Amino acid sequence: MSPLLSAEEFTRELHHIGEERYHHRHPFHKLMHEGKLSRGQLQAWALNRYYYQSRIPIKDAFIVARSTDADFRRAWRKRIADHDGDGNDVGGIERWLALAEATGLARGRVRSEGEVLPAVRFAVEAYLDLVQRGTMIAAVASSLTELFAGKLIALRMDKMREHYPWMEPGLSYFQKRVTQAPEDARFALQWVIEHAQSRDQQEQACDALRAKCTILWAQLDAIYFAYVEPGWPPPGAFQMRAEGQA
Amino acid sequence: MSPLLSAEEFTRELHHIGEERYHHRHPFHKLMHEGKLSRGQLQAWALNRYYYQSRIPIKDAFIVARSTDADFRRAWRKRIADHDGDGNDVGGIERWLALAEATGLARGRVRSEGEVLPAVRFAVEAYLDLVQRGTMIAAVASSLTELFAGKLIALRMDKMREHYPWMEPGLSYFQKRVTQAPEDARFALQWVIEHAQSRDQQEQACDALRAKCTILWAQLDAIYFAYVEPGWPPPGAFQMRAEGQA
Repeated sequence: MSPLLSAEEFTRELHHIGEERYHHRHPFHKLMHEGKLSRGQLQAWALNRYYYQSRIPIKDAFIVARSTDADFRRAWRKRIADHDGDGNDVGGIERWLALAEATGLARGRVRSEGEVLPAVRFAVEAYLDLVQRGTMIAAVASSLTELFAGKLIALRMDKMREHYPWMEPGLSYFQKRVTQAPEDARFALQWVIEHAQSRDQQEQACDALRAKCTILWAQLDAIYFAYVEPGWPPPGAFQMRAEGQA
Repeated sequence: MSPLLSAEEFTRELHHIGEERYHHRHPFHKLMHEGKLSRGQLQAWALNRYYYQSRIPIKDAFIVARSTDADFRRAWRKRIADHDGDGNDVGGIERWLALAEATGLARGRVRSEGEVLPAVRFAVEAYLDLVQRGTMIAAVASSLTELFAGKLIALRMDKMREHYPWMEPGLSYFQKRVTQAPEDARFALQWVIEHAQSRDQQEQACDALRAKCTILWAQLDAIYFAYVEPGWPPPGAFQMRAEGQA
């Protein structure tokens, strides 16, 4: 049996996984940041990614439901409010809808979830499955992709303002996440370091983070495949209109 | 509320769904039947599709487990034996391994499931989910893709002999399925017609068949995307070697 990693070694390993597998490396994001996506492609991304966003508070509620530690539950509950909103804030899902509207999509169309790519749906369901059926360490560690989100989101905001200035009214989701994500990640990382007290549990955390990277990556693969190249969304999925069409 | 469809109308509707959505129309199968796939691409297909094959008896066991009708269970149990084998026959999974070997892959590599595309995995898990969480009508109706399998498999055997004669030692899976699939489909269709006694239940069956077509289609999308065009399997997935390499 390999020895327990120190907190520093363990943290380094988690960061290494993100460096290699997080979707900041995905070609769809590269095209986005180079300004090479059409409005229709950004619509397809916003519409499909909405499905993922809409399941985040459900994912977090499952994690809250699994914990018998009231302190943990209180801390994690913040995430549900962050997405669903509270008295002070409309919440991340609403902000994502504003982003989708900035691309030119009607919010009802996005909320209906009728045109979501099946492969995106399957990947998101796999995430809900992971947080329900995996160990508690795995469930929490799957959120550690937030360690890498802050940097990606900051870059994305810059690049969107540069290349797609008409997206400006939709950027408040990212504005909020650029601080939320690192805060949430710090808590989750600390919890995972404290609770992964065997090498086996550290491996569970690493595996869960890899699995989560795969879930994010597979969504962009599906979007790229359907809307960039070769470009065949399956029957029933969102169809892009030719540029300039109403 | 729409009126109940007659058995003939209902059957016609199910066939219409298959005509429109079954994966006989998928571009990957078209390339296959035109002889345009490389050995590496056929390997990728055989290796990934093995994951689907390996979950078929599990899917059927879930369906058996849900029924309180011993006659139904006895009839459906045949499918488990068809795939897992019995005293007389090695079964479909073993035959699929022979097919994978005919493409030049080692059986251990295929059975390990280590290089399966995540998107294929997610689609297959969605199938297991459907037969566990959907209604019993939906669970049974999801197998109705077999209505369309006989014709596709007969064509595939012809085309494989024509374009990939070195696949011959691997064709016994299809040889068997060309009679098994239509027999199984007849039973399932009869059961669904008898048990879908409201328009709502008929719709459940249609929706489940559509969902199953989507699950098959998404697997081929993932394979096409990773191994035909643009050709980027995600980290950890099966990598094709250049033709001629050992």
